[in-house]
Formats: sequence, structure tokens, C-alpha cells
Amino acid sequence: MSLALSLGRRGQGQCWPNPAVGCVIVKDGRIVGRGWTQPGGRPHAEPEALARAGALARGATAYVSLEPCAHFGKTPPCAQALIDAGVKRVVAAIEDSDSRVSGHGFAMLRDAGIEVTTGICADEAARDHAGFFLKTEQGRPFVTLKLANSFDGRIATATGESKWITGPDARRAVHAMRARHDAVIVGGGTARADDPSLTVRDMGISRQPVRVVISRHLDLPLMGQLARTAKDVPLWICHGSGADADRLRAWEGVGATLIHCASDGLQLEAADVLQQLGQAGLTRVFCEGGSGLAASLLKQDLVDELIGFTAGVVIGGDGLSSIGSLGHEALADAPRFDLIEQTQIGPDLLHRWARSLR
Amino acid sequence: MSLALSLGRRGQGQCWPNPAVGCVIVKDGRIVGRGWTQPGGRPHAEPEALARAGALARGATAYVSLEPCAHFGKTPPCAQALIDAGVKRVVAAIEDSDSRVSGHGFAMLRDAGIEVTTGICADEAARDHAGFFLKTEQGRPFVTLKLANSFDGRIATATGESKWITGPDARRAVHAMRARHDAVIVGGGTARADDPSLTVRDMGISRQPVRVVISRHLDLPLMGQLARTAKDVPLWICHGSGADADRLRAWEGVGATLIHCASDGLQLEAADVLQQLGQAGLTRVFCEGGSGLAASLLKQDLVDELIGFTAGVVIGGDGLSSIGSLGHEALADAPRFDLIEQTQIGPDLLHRWARSLR
Repeated sequence: MSLALSLGRRGQGQCWPNPAVGCVIVKDGRIVGRGWTQPGGRPHAEPEALARAGALARGATAYVSLEPCAHFGKTPPCAQALIDAGVKRVVAAIEDSDSRVSGHGFAMLRDAGIEVTTGICADEAARDHAGFFLKTEQGRPFVTLKLANSFDGRIATATGESKWITGPDARRAVHAMRARHDAVIVGGGTARADDPSLTVRDMGISRQPVRVVISRHLDLPLMGQLARTAKDVPLWICHGSGADADRLRAWEGVGATLIHCASDGLQLEAADVLQQLGQAGLTRVFCEGGSGLAASLLKQDLVDELIGFTAGVVIGGDGLSSIGSLGHEALADAPRFDLIEQTQIGPDLLHRWARSLR
Repeated sequence: MSLALSLGRRGQGQCWPNPAVGCVIVKDGRIVGRGWTQPGGRPHAEPEALARAGALARGATAYVSLEPCAHFGKTPPCAQALIDAGVKRVVAAIEDSDSRVSGHGFAMLRDAGIEVTTGICADEAARDHAGFFLKTEQGRPFVTLKLANSFDGRIATATGESKWITGPDARRAVHAMRARHDAVIVGGGTARADDPSLTVRDMGISRQPVRVVISRHLDLPLMGQLARTAKDVPLWICHGSGADADRLRAWEGVGATLIHCASDGLQLEAADVLQQLGQAGLTRVFCEGGSGLAASLLKQDLVDELIGFTAGVVIGGDGLSSIGSLGHEALADAPRFDLIEQTQIGPDLLHRWARSLR
């Protein structure tokens, strides 16, 4: 099952709106087929693994990181494929939360006389599929918020110098993280200040994450990196009602997808932005700031994982904060996270935190 | 030698103004004596170890974490004690930087026909004795700056709530760190806001670190924890010329030691404060903030080790910064540190950084 889970993770960021599933087929103690959800979401993991196994699948055990699907979508149901191949036993990590599948996949297999075991490595599978489950259950993607800052939580000096606080190893690690998400999101301020391309470089991936910019007034430079590359790599811009019609047309002209979101008068509503992104199929999004967007996600408790890169440089209290005002007077109101990893990356410290289950 | 170094570290925080040295005496492959500098700085490590070895020291090898002293201070020279005991060979980690000793200890041993080897684990010894060397060479103690803050570098909410950002395990680790330093230092603002006792609790140490408060105007509450305990645990207050005479008398009355330091008009000069503390015998000081004191130490490049406790709570940009303004416009001017340790302490992240050797 560990292998199935790890194969499944290969699809993260590549196969949305589908879940990134892994499958291993074992016959007489020998692995005869391996598969994972392919870029774009099809084929699914099970037919991939069955194709490798061929006739050896008959009488074998299939390990899958998620309940096999039971409905006809763009592909026939995987549960049927396992039945047709003559698999004897299916071991699944976790039940699907999609109502079209939930329990039906297992029932279909059991009705065909296949022995079904479930709940193996369920916690790990729940983490891996968290984005897909969140989208199904709450309509929004899993949100990773990454901040790279100085020892004292600053992202730039008072005059705005920010290149580079962290080193090249950390920046490369960020590209690997982007590649495992369906989309990279930044606020309009960051897009204006840094003119980023937000693409994944040197990772050999077949599908670039969508670039999403949150800009209520759509006041982004039409001459920048994002505009220049919008025809090659998807660029979605979330904007509010007040955005100028000429700007809307201009951005459509360069190839961007425009998404109209609700606004609370001051800024776009983070919850609505995420609902729209979930509706568009995204299951895992990677937010890289700036401080305003980070604050509005945290304020509404919409951050599932927090990643910090901390550099051994001290900028001081006059530098730019990594996170904007949250307005919490009491510590008890501030959002809490649990440490899940700490490691050195080049000269920098990487620390990952998961939302506390309070 | 590793054992000698580790024994030596037992004396850290306990034996100032003397260096914390360890000594192991080995005869025929067997340890026959171990010793370390005792609380208060006497006896030294070598006579301690020789006393344990007794007659077995004759013909033995002595491993010491610092060059044995060669001068008559409050104790006779350790080099002479090693000669008198009939030790055959001395292995030392590093030469002493004190001009009364430097090289003389080795010369005295060699003149007596003892084989001397030096430079074993010299880097580790240089780190362990950094405080003693700094005091000898630059007149100031080694400075550890510890800050316990939220994920985003805040030490309190906008309304000042700070108890507790980090958990009980981190607070206990802080007591262990205090115990290994000669003094604990805080700024006056922290002393007023938190009313701390700054003592080491539940660590079974025989000598409490000196409590040092930096308060230019001496505007500290005479009814607080510090004043109440000043007769039991040393309390030193660094103040400027403008401090009120009545206050000076009152603090002397409760048992505090008052140290007059130079001021730059706005605040006490951190460099002068440290010189005065070095002159008073301190070799290792542990600064626990607040943000103003942290900033003035960092601004003058007087921080040797930086310790961060990071909690999984996000306070936001309206919270209190852990470090005050440094006024660096360019990143290149900001102080740099190298990561030396990262570990989880209870729910919190501990990270230690050493001053970069640029």
C-alpha cells in the first residue's frame, strides 16, 4: 500500500480535477503491474496497472490508494475493469467521498465475489487525497500557504528589497512544491512588485500548474511575464465587479481566463475565490503570498498547510511583514498549526505545519 | 577528548569568570580520573581529575579541553599540578588566549619532559570556550539572543497578550539554556511588561545566573519579582547618567548592583553594556529580548548565537515584532547567521543559528 500511495503522489498537480491515485497488482508475492492516474486525469490508476499486468491480473491482489470508481465518467468504472480482469482481492486505503462512488465501488466488487479490505494506511491516504475530498465535500481546493522570510518573519526590507532572502536550494524546492499542486496563486501586489512567471522550471513535468492572480481591480501590468506567457501556460485572474471593461478585454485578449468573484467592499472574498477555483476543478492550490492574500486566507481559516522557509538573515521590525493584519486581540483566537516537518534546505530552514484539528 | 569537552560543558554558567574546562586522565586504556571546573571557578578541572586518579596519575595521559594554566591566581598553576602528579603526556584541545597562559602552560609541561599534543577537537573547543576567549580578547561576553515567537515573528498580539505563545516544553528548554549561561539579560520594557523572575527553576544547579536588566532611566517597578528576589539571586541593573538618584538608592537598598553605562542619547550603548559585563567577569550571556534590546545588539553585530522558538500560531502583522527596527535598506547590510540545529520541542520548533563568518 505504501508503494501504491507513493505512486499515486506522482500524479499530484498533474491530474486534476481527478484524484491522484496509485495502484499496485501483486500475484504470488510478486508485483506484476503498477499504475497511477495519468496527466489530465485519465487513464485512471487501475486500468494503467491492469494493462501492465495483462493476463497475470487473474487471481491477483490489487492495492489501490482510493476506492475504485463505480460510475461511467469519461472512462468506464475502474471497479468493472478489476472485475473483468479477474482480480481476486482488492485492498483499498480509503473510501471515496464522492457520492457517485462512496461505497458503490466496494459494493460492486463484493457483488462480483471479490474480497475487499479497506482502511489500510487510511490516515496517509486521507492526507494525500485531502484536496480531492475537500473539493467534493466543501467545494474548495486544499490550500498550502508558503512564505519565505527572514529569521524575524519579514519578506523584504523597508525599501522593498526581497531578492534573495532565501537561497537557490530553497527556490528549487519551491518549484518542486509548485509541481505537486494544481495551481500557484499570488495576490495582485506580488504580481506587480515581483513580475513573476510562476511557472515550474527544470522539473520535467508534463502539465504546468495554472497560475492564478487575485486582483480585484485587475490592475496588473499587461507588459509583464504573466501576460507574455498567458497563451502557453494557463493564467486565471480573479477579479471583482469594479474591474474596468477595457482591462477585462485586454486580458482576455492576451489569453487569460477571467473569474468574477464576490468582494466584501475592500477585497475579494477569499472563501468565494476558493469556491470558484474548486468549481473550475482545482483540488490543490499553492499560495505564495503576498502578505494581504496570506492574511485574508488565514483570517477565514482557509489554510490547510503552512510552509515556512526561514533564512538566517535578520531584517528587523521596519521590514515588510510576511502576513498582514489579522486583528486578533486574544492569542486563543489566532489560527493554530501542528509541526509536521523541519529540515535544512541549503542554508535555510524549511518547516511545514498542518492545520490543527481543534 | 570528547568526554573531556562534555565534562567541561557541565561547568558552563557555573564557573565564570573562569573557563569551563574538562579533564580526563587515562592510564593503560582505562579512565582513572575525571574532573571539571567547579562552581565559582575553583578548583580547576585538572586538580579535580588528578585527585580522583591519585597515584594512578603517574605515567598517565591527561586529556584537557583547554591549555592548562601556568600562572598563580587563586589556585596554583594546573601545569605544575600535572607535573607534580607525574603525568607522562598531556593532550589539549586548544591553546588558551589569556596572555598569562597562552603557550606558557604547554612550555612549562614540555620543560618538565612531558609530551604535549594540541589541537585535538579544536573547533569544538573553540565553540565551547568562545565566551571566555571573547572576554579575554574583546572584553565582552559571548551573546546568545533567544526569541520565542509566532510563525510570523511576533511576540505578542496587538493588545500585548503574550502568554503563552510557545508551550511548556519550550519554556523548560529555556531554563536549561539559562542555566548554561552566566547571566540572563532583558530590556527594561520586558521587565515592566512581564514582571519576570528570570531565575532557573527545577534544574538542580548550584549557582543561579546573574539577572541583568538594561534600563536607562531605571524606571522599573520596585514591587516586582526582580526587586523582591534581589537579595537571593544577583540582580544587576545597567542604567544611564540620567537615572534618578532616589531610584538608584532604592534599588541599592533592595540589593541590586547598579552599573553605569554610556548612552547614545536615546538608549544605552549595547557595546558599552557588554564591556562592563565582561569586566564584571561574565563570559556567556543569554538575552531574552525585548525587541528594542534585540535590535540594538543586532545593529552593532554583537549577537554570536541566535535561538528561535517558533510556535504554530499566526498572530499577523498587527502583532508585536520580536525585533525592533534595524534600518537596513539593503539585504546585504542585514546580519547573517548559519543554521546549526533544528528540532521539535513539544509542539514548537527550535532553531539555532551561529553568526556567519563573512
